[in-house]
Amino acid sequence: MVGHSSDEEKDSKQAEIKSQASSQYSAQNEWQVHKVGVPPRQHLFKEFASTVKETFFADDPLRPFRDQPGSRKFVLGVQAIFPIFEWGRSYSLSKFKGDLIAGLTIASLCIPQDIGYAKLANLDPQYGLYSSFVPPLIYAFMGSSRDIAIGPVAVVSLLLGRLIQNEIDPTTNPHDYRRLAFTATFFAGVTQATLGFFRLGFLIDFLSHAAVVGFMAGAAITIALQQLKGFLGITKFTKKSDIVSVMRSVFQSAHHGWNWQTIVIGASFLGFLLVAKYIGKKNKKFFWVPAIAPLTSVILSTFFVYITHAEKEGVQIVNHIKKGINPPSVNEIYFTGDYLLKGVKIGIVAGMIALTEAIAIGRTFAAMKDYQLDGNKEMVAMGVMNIVGSMTSCYVATGSFSRSAVNYMAGCKTAVSNIVMSCVVFLTLEFITPLFKYTPNAILAAIIISAVIGLIDFEAAILIWKIDKFDFIACMGAFFGVIFVSVEIGLLIAVTISFAKILLQVTRPRTAILGKLPRTAVYRNILQYPEATKVPGILIVRVDSAIYFSNSNYIKERILRWLTDEEEQLKAAYMPRLQYLIVEMSPVTDIDTSGIHAFEELYRSLQKRDVQLVLANPGPVVIDKLHASNFANLIGEGKIFLTVSDAVSSCSPKLVEEA
Amino acid sequence: MVGHSSDEEKDSKQAEIKSQASSQYSAQNEWQVHKVGVPPRQHLFKEFASTVKETFFADDPLRPFRDQPGSRKFVLGVQAIFPIFEWGRSYSLSKFKGDLIAGLTIASLCIPQDIGYAKLANLDPQYGLYSSFVPPLIYAFMGSSRDIAIGPVAVVSLLLGRLIQNEIDPTTNPHDYRRLAFTATFFAGVTQATLGFFRLGFLIDFLSHAAVVGFMAGAAITIALQQLKGFLGITKFTKKSDIVSVMRSVFQSAHHGWNWQTIVIGASFLGFLLVAKYIGKKNKKFFWVPAIAPLTSVILSTFFVYITHAEKEGVQIVNHIKKGINPPSVNEIYFTGDYLLKGVKIGIVAGMIALTEAIAIGRTFAAMKDYQLDGNKEMVAMGVMNIVGSMTSCYVATGSFSRSAVNYMAGCKTAVSNIVMSCVVFLTLEFITPLFKYTPNAILAAIIISAVIGLIDFEAAILIWKIDKFDFIACMGAFFGVIFVSVEIGLLIAVTISFAKILLQVTRPRTAILGKLPRTAVYRNILQYPEATKVPGILIVRVDSAIYFSNSNYIKERILRWLTDEEEQLKAAYMPRLQYLIVEMSPVTDIDTSGIHAFEELYRSLQKRDVQLVLANPGPVVIDKLHASNFANLIGEGKIFLTVSDAVSSCSPKLVEEA
Repeated sequence: MVGHSSDEEKDSKQAEIKSQASSQYSAQNEWQVHKVGVPPRQHLFKEFASTVKETFFADDPLRPFRDQPGSRKFVLGVQAIFPIFEWGRSYSLSKFKGDLIAGLTIASLCIPQDIGYAKLANLDPQYGLYSSFVPPLIYAFMGSSRDIAIGPVAVVSLLLGRLIQNEIDPTTNPHDYRRLAFTATFFAGVTQATLGFFRLGFLIDFLSHAAVVGFMAGAAITIALQQLKGFLGITKFTKKSDIVSVMRSVFQSAHHGWNWQTIVIGASFLGFLLVAKYIGKKNKKFFWVPAIAPLTSVILSTFFVYITHAEKEGVQIVNHIKKGINPPSVNEIYFTGDYLLKGVKIGIVAGMIALTEAIAIGRTFAAMKDYQLDGNKEMVAMGVMNIVGSMTSCYVATGSFSRSAVNYMAGCKTAVSNIVMSCVVFLTLEFITPLFKYTPNAILAAIIISAVIGLIDFEAAILIWKIDKFDFIACMGAFFGVIFVSVEIGLLIAVTISFAKILLQVTRPRTAILGKLPRTAVYRNILQYPEATKVPGILIVRVDSAIYFSNSNYIKERILRWLTDEEEQLKAAYMPRLQYLIVEMSPVTDIDTSGIHAFEELYRSLQKRDVQLVLANPGPVVIDKLHASNFANLIGEGKIFLTVSDAVSSCSPKLVEEA
Repeated sequence: MVGHSSDEEKDSKQAEIKSQASSQYSAQNEWQVHKVGVPPRQHLFKEFASTVKETFFADDPLRPFRDQPGSRKFVLGVQAIFPIFEWGRSYSLSKFKGDLIAGLTIASLCIPQDIGYAKLANLDPQYGLYSSFVPPLIYAFMGSSRDIAIGPVAVVSLLLGRLIQNEIDPTTNPHDYRRLAFTATFFAGVTQATLGFFRLGFLIDFLSHAAVVGFMAGAAITIALQQLKGFLGITKFTKKSDIVSVMRSVFQSAHHGWNWQTIVIGASFLGFLLVAKYIGKKNKKFFWVPAIAPLTSVILSTFFVYITHAEKEGVQIVNHIKKGINPPSVNEIYFTGDYLLKGVKIGIVAGMIALTEAIAIGRTFAAMKDYQLDGNKEMVAMGVMNIVGSMTSCYVATGSFSRSAVNYMAGCKTAVSNIVMSCVVFLTLEFITPLFKYTPNAILAAIIISAVIGLIDFEAAILIWKIDKFDFIACMGAFFGVIFVSVEIGLLIAVTISFAKILLQVTRPRTAILGKLPRTAVYRNILQYPEATKVPGILIVRVDSAIYFSNSNYIKERILRWLTDEEEQLKAAYMPRLQYLIVEMSPVTDIDTSGIHAFEELYRSLQKRDVQLVLANPGPVVIDKLHASNFANLIGEGKIFLTVSDAVSSCSPKLVEEA
């Protein structure tokens, strides 16, 4: 026997000695000392303020500003908007070395990709390069990720191309098409900046990881299929993106439309790229092999076409890329007219998808290097970069998975690698673009195919299958939606399933019957711990969720159903009937008015059946509300215990007396 | 010292003796025996089936059919669809006595109400009576509630009137208006039956109690304001329902439009009705006083107008109610054309609101008398009754709050009281309607006002305020939306706020720092239990929610923030640094792939800070997924404990060694 005992405990101890054959009662007896704590009532305004703070300012962005003089606050404010002024002060030559190498590597990777992605968005090749010049510069000043590589990406290019194409035909009306693209880019930027500014960044969390995995894989396959046009040298190709239309288009042109020279060039360089990729994957030291392989392919193939004049054999070539840097495009944006609303819609969708990708990349690398990434600040940076981009002939730019990974492996230290890349793209635009004239389209197709393969994350899909079947359905729904219907439908499926999951989770929470683990005072789910035993005459149910209007009724009925089932079993086995129902409330983090009502109804139903309702361990919010609603008085203050074990030891003696 | 001890425990016991100054260690030591249980892996199909079952068939509707011969199954099937064949077999004369009295009482209440409510829906008075004739009959055969009184209700009448009026003007085009009303009723029935048949009944749970309270109160005030027209004898009245338009209308007509005779009649009978209500409330024995007061008022006032010819003084009267029972209206329903879609839309909204009201009533009385109500079956019954109703000139009927309460107090035993009421309405339609000719509109207005006052539930609103401030915002939002804008907007606000609450709850779950309650092995929230003390070198965080994609990132960052805060405090106090982070997982009922990712990132961040991650008491689903995803191996199997107390006692010795 250990511990202290006081006068007020004597009664309960006596009762326990009578009832408890277990050797645990001394410990339990001590716990009896503790009443369920009722936290001090908070002032209404304080409570409200803390909710708002936790919802929108969970990361406490103003913390560094606290207790600082005015001038310091100004400096901190500037640094908050332009983080480059913060990390720039400790920038060094050794860091620059890393950034320079990384910047040159991603530049060599981005130039051929940009040209290909621009085609995916139905834009002329230079627009891809433009989008790798201005946005990375802006991001370098405003962004807080050190590893992300900014520029056009495959999925957003495809999405933008598909959505704008639904409105304007890019071949017959390229100028209006371009104008709508800038409009969409502008509003994508506005959407991103707004979400960040109003601290609504958490909204992108509603697109679940599983849905994103499925969507990305579907988009990758769709993009790869689109490349068959360039890869096989087909001239007449479908405008639809679903796999059925594309494959029909491919096979219909099989006997007259394929160009064998194109296929040979494309296939051999695709082989080269894939081997390079494999080498880079096998040995992390050779990460630069896949990184420079695309540019090498472009140079080799361009040179080859130039000397053999293969373009006369029907090998399609890039032909012309406009020389010079981004022309202004402010007056191209539709601020009035029919296309304004369409631009806004497309912009919102593209902006959200671009954000999802960028934030996922940013978080991944931030976790690897263990620095904090402010999601809302990132969004503002992305938004500003796209707004400025839309005024300088860029289309939606964001963080690229493949280039960010290369950037990281090439040893980038800060966003300066983006500035380096931007400078290289600037030089390319100013001096080198004419050299791309003879670059065969098949090479660009091969580069895009080898790039998007990385978006198909088999391992993630397998892991999702293993962990959560419902997530897997979301993943597959998005995947098949994209490849069999369209990018938009795939996205819609992904969002819908994500929401359905949340709602399902809220409507049908889990409940469990608890039993006592032998030789302990611990009560656990009897399905998880088969050795746990039920206490005769007492049913212990744990509710595994906050109780809200959306589930209160279900929970009430579920508990009554447990009770009915248990009573039937006991009757069949000629065991004594149930006299107590203990509800373990530990996981019940909150309860609302509907929840209280449900408990009142539960209490009344139990009274009719002559079963006592006992609660164990309600949390601070719940106990507060039980008191506020007078429910605590209704069932009796003495019916609420700190632990299940306390509740059981209080019920047991009475059981014995009755028996 | 109590309990058993075995060889494998010796090591840990030794460690504990070193570290634990507490007298609890013997008990904790015993718990050490228990590993965290991993439930047996379920077969995929079984798992899926059980999810579907719990979502859609939570009430296990096929249970009685199990192990029954074919013929019995048929009988049970018929009884399931028509419960009257089940309870009808044990029906007795004594039950009929109760039902007869209750039926007569609610009939006397419903006749004047029906006439008034029909006007609220911009329909001729007989349509209200029609709707109290057919639907209650159908419900009596198919419904499972014993206390609900079926017929037209104020809120649905108002809603229907408002929504249809937006499409068709009832004064200039009454025939098309009526046709659209039947169309909406038909689709309201289809909606209800569909929800019930596909077991989607839980969808109506998404309208929170608080929102319903606010909406009902707002609707009651709107309805009462509408009655000012009849009550004051105004001839020119606004078509809008918001309080500003109505009050302007009232005061504009003050100097020429009010009719003092009307006001005198209306006011005196309203006084009579309110006194009757008060008497009924004071003494439950006199429940019949407010129940028959409306019919008494109608008879008295009609007689008074008839002998004084007050209608010639400008007192508006009902004038004409068509004699005879419901004419068929199947060919009035729009099954094609523009109005079809509008009818569907209005029907869905009206059907859902009608269901919400009926289910709430059904549940309330079922809980009072402790019988089970099958929500889905109720919906099918309501749906069929409205579909048949729409074909027999009825508009949307549902359960009425006021009449159901009277029904209950008058001692109804079964749905037979609805049949009795229906018969009385039948007789009224066949023989008595001409007598209503001289009934003054002011009386109907007074009856409606005194009826809807009961919908304003001050106590519920005060309780909501006390329990949950966010709920109160939803309640007030719906309330002010209805009275200041329109019924539709109020409803929209209610639904939106309800959903926002669910999403907020899922996105920003609570977390808590735990401390050890003195002289126990129990760890609780230090905010709720100020006497709980932190364990030096260890931070214990409890996550109060399932971890899903919508909150995984927030939870990860929140935990890291707790850690940073704690480390800063410790540094300031020159205390030893944190070496362990224990995450109490009891309330974490589920985790998805995003959640696992978040934990992996958390683990990596902690590694960088040289803090060990330890988990306590993950539930069956969670431990299963931790293993499936290999996360359990990543952090080490030995880092997962049954209880926080186990985890602490395993960490403490190592802390001591390092110190």
